[in-house]
Amino acid sequence: MTSLFSNIENALLEVLSEKRLQHTLGVVESATRLADIYNQDMDEAKTAALLHDYAKDLTHNQMSYFKRLYNIKMDEVIQSTPELQHGIVAARIAEDKFRITNKNVLNAIEYHTTGRIEMTKLEKIIYLADFIEPNRDYKGVDELRKVAIEDLDKAVFMALSNTIIYVVNIKKILHPNTLHARNYMLKNIE
Amino acid sequence: MTSLFSNIENALLEVLSEKRLQHTLGVVESATRLADIYNQDMDEAKTAALLHDYAKDLTHNQMSYFKRLYNIKMDEVIQSTPELQHGIVAARIAEDKFRITNKNVLNAIEYHTTGRIEMTKLEKIIYLADFIEPNRDYKGVDELRKVAIEDLDKAVFMALSNTIIYVVNIKKILHPNTLHARNYMLKNIE
Repeated sequence: MTSLFSNIENALLEVLSEKRLQHTLGVVESATRLADIYNQDMDEAKTAALLHDYAKDLTHNQMSYFKRLYNIKMDEVIQSTPELQHGIVAARIAEDKFRITNKNVLNAIEYHTTGRIEMTKLEKIIYLADFIEPNRDYKGVDELRKVAIEDLDKAVFMALSNTIIYVVNIKKILHPNTLHARNYMLKNIE
Repeated sequence: MTSLFSNIENALLEVLSEKRLQHTLGVVESATRLADIYNQDMDEAKTAALLHDYAKDLTHNQMSYFKRLYNIKMDEVIQSTPELQHGIVAARIAEDKFRITNKNVLNAIEYHTTGRIEMTKLEKIIYLADFIEPNRDYKGVDELRKVAIEDLDKAVFMALSNTIIYVVNIKKILHPNTLHARNYMLKNIE
């Protein structure tokens, strides 16, 4: 795993801005901590965390290149919302460039922006780590950090709910998966 | 139409609480005003407004009776969320008891709680009138009333957005149609 991790880290230096790299390392820190607490594989958590934003700083042309290269099919909402495309592209790069075959890791990367129903624990950990990593600073983040180490499902529900309210308030398209995930988690924590 | 309206009004006296009756008459007032502004049929608007909450004060047993009587199929979210069932039940009662055949009126009744993509003008009017009728009193209602008479689509978008935030905040299930409608309206008003 050590050589895989250093391969990925070297590649991240090329594709991420300094700020995004710091964020990514923060997600690694939070995700491995959550994996430890919730008995998930630490290497899987680290791999998914390292790669989750791999495609986020790509230019429009680079994104188009990868979408064509991997023949990536996107639903209508993702197709029309560039901010939602980096997860699925990163998952395909993870497969092709870094030879990741673990479906759980690939799904955690692919769905880290929208969430979805029936997320695995690893998917929840990556989704949540993205919101609570140490560089994050917004109203409510400390409360979310606290809940994250006590009750994974409750914290994921909170993060999904916050996201819905945030995206609706800033008048952006919200992916239906985020609502489906939130309704699903609401039933599960009841 | 006069005899249809008095038939419905007499029936409403039997099935609605005093408060719900006042709300319904308020929706009639707002819906007919919006129909006038946006060149929609006033009688259709009045019919849909009068009947939109017809099933809202029914008991659990009465609801079950009508669901069986009309063999009403509901999606999973509506099935598990009693608050979302009165529109579809009222639409079937409108057909059967009051012989309403106008699909536009029936859909305006059926979808008045959740909204949906590609709402007709009448559907938008009933959806919106429900939020702005004179008895409503909540933060932002005056702003919504103002926009409603200036820009129907913008007002519907605002009402859908407010609903999403409200329902997420009170930790209730939100019907995906409300999000689909809001995303659809966002694209349309851009």
